[in-house]
Amino acid sequence: MIVALAGGVGGAKLAEGLAALMGSDVTVIVNTADDFEHLGLPISPDLDTVMYTLGGIANPEAGWGVAGETWGFLEQVTRLGGPSWFRLGDRDLATHVLRSAALRAGARLTEITANLCHRLGIAARVLPMSDDAVRTIVHSAEGDLPFQEYFVGRKCEIPVTGFAFDGIEKARPTAEVENALRAPDLEAIIFCPSNPFVSIDPIISLPGVRQLIADAGVPVVAVSPIIDGAAVKGPAAKMMGELGLEPSPATVAAHYRGLVTGFVMDSADARLAPTVEALGMIVRLTGILMRDGSDRRRLARECIAFARSIGRPIGS
Amino acid sequence: MIVALAGGVGGAKLAEGLAALMGSDVTVIVNTADDFEHLGLPISPDLDTVMYTLGGIANPEAGWGVAGETWGFLEQVTRLGGPSWFRLGDRDLATHVLRSAALRAGARLTEITANLCHRLGIAARVLPMSDDAVRTIVHSAEGDLPFQEYFVGRKCEIPVTGFAFDGIEKARPTAEVENALRAPDLEAIIFCPSNPFVSIDPIISLPGVRQLIADAGVPVVAVSPIIDGAAVKGPAAKMMGELGLEPSPATVAAHYRGLVTGFVMDSADARLAPTVEALGMIVRLTGILMRDGSDRRRLARECIAFARSIGRPIGS
Repeated sequence: MIVALAGGVGGAKLAEGLAALMGSDVTVIVNTADDFEHLGLPISPDLDTVMYTLGGIANPEAGWGVAGETWGFLEQVTRLGGPSWFRLGDRDLATHVLRSAALRAGARLTEITANLCHRLGIAARVLPMSDDAVRTIVHSAEGDLPFQEYFVGRKCEIPVTGFAFDGIEKARPTAEVENALRAPDLEAIIFCPSNPFVSIDPIISLPGVRQLIADAGVPVVAVSPIIDGAAVKGPAAKMMGELGLEPSPATVAAHYRGLVTGFVMDSADARLAPTVEALGMIVRLTGILMRDGSDRRRLARECIAFARSIGRPIGS
Repeated sequence: MIVALAGGVGGAKLAEGLAALMGSDVTVIVNTADDFEHLGLPISPDLDTVMYTLGGIANPEAGWGVAGETWGFLEQVTRLGGPSWFRLGDRDLATHVLRSAALRAGARLTEITANLCHRLGIAARVLPMSDDAVRTIVHSAEGDLPFQEYFVGRKCEIPVTGFAFDGIEKARPTAEVENALRAPDLEAIIFCPSNPFVSIDPIISLPGVRQLIADAGVPVVAVSPIIDGAAVKGPAAKMMGELGLEPSPATVAAHYRGLVTGFVMDSADARLAPTVEALGMIVRLTGILMRDGSDRRRLARECIAFARSIGRPIGS
């Protein structure tokens, strides 16, 4: 059994690789602090990206949304004077409307996600990190912004000064998340190559989660979302610069210090391996860019093998 | 000033003719007893048909929905295991989602409708009959059915034994409806060729509306939805048969006895004119089938002229 922590695009890619190899033996715990309400509909961007990617219906170009999407709804909303800054596709909307109806009928986000995944033929278990609302707030020189307003509305253009996760103190990881991290047959925990500040941090900031990870007593492997000073996708590198940190895998590793035991980074960053090792982590250098399904499966296989190698007591 | 009472397709056609001739001098009061909630979204089929028709975006073949509609949402809902019996198009959905969000934000259906109509460039005033929920229940040998389940879900196949309008006692016509019927410059009230049982009856069954119509002191002209024993569209004729009534314009006229002063019916039904006149109504025979915009405007013009002719004291 493997548990993966994931945010959006990059995380979903590795999660898909893991799921392709291990099927129902993979549990993906997904960030929900990006969630927001739009046009009265609850939207879970990271959950949806993971679901669509694992379900094989993700738009391969955009990295978000559904393949073969159409835009009649958005065009008509615009014509009727509604907001068009968040691009809701017609097929994507089915997820949001069904989820909204189920939530209003009293179902938990965890159950709703399980049903949707079942319909999409996903064998791996996809778990929202919490059924409670947690909302990422972006601190900036222009004041505080809800995450989607920063991310989509302002296209990450505003320099950030920090982040807060509204509601995190009162939120709880679900019983399903706790059970996954406590599973007796858990082999490894993998932090997917997602944004450490806004994708992984909300998950590990939930009350009790750091302790659950530590108590699991299994290798914890993080995959760098940064290659050669740049993020593969998204604002991670840009955020590091704005926060006064060097955009590098070593910065990611330092961020996870004390929690992560193995660190996977790109061969292009080999010169930083000693820096990461100095943090007390075992380093695995490999190609971490995932261009296609074959890359995803290869990287997933390497991560599992790496975790297993860490799992063995030294000298055994 | 003209007030028209309308349900769905047939009513919308005549309303469009009236609006084309008189623009903002027309107020269309629309049945909302067909309204229901689907996938957590409030749907107002008759309001939407009237809006889309007056806005020039109605699907001319179907008689409902939006022209050039796409179905990505419905396809995906079906794939995800959601209900597909009610066909929500991608563009149509924009109306329902925006309306739902506005209702939840506390706006009245009347205000929301006015905003949507403004966006669609509709000069005529379109008023829901009430901001309160009224729901048509269809009585049948199989028991009671909510209207849309009967109409869409069961395709009107079940014989009806009667109708009830849930909530009608506590519902009120809006101030806008009352003001339209009390307007000092009101010239005529026109009952569009809509189903008398499930489109017009809910409107005139709202507390106070019959009295407002009577007190208006203007000609009240009804247009038959039945031509030569058949409804142009919808189950009106079928319902009449099941209720033990003859499917004919005379049955419609009898249904409106005491409220309507002038009755417009098709020349094909000329032999029934004496029967209708015996009810105390003045009859106008003409072609009432509306195949295109030109038919709509011609019939609208005839209705207005007919009403004005009734309006003059006899012998003047």
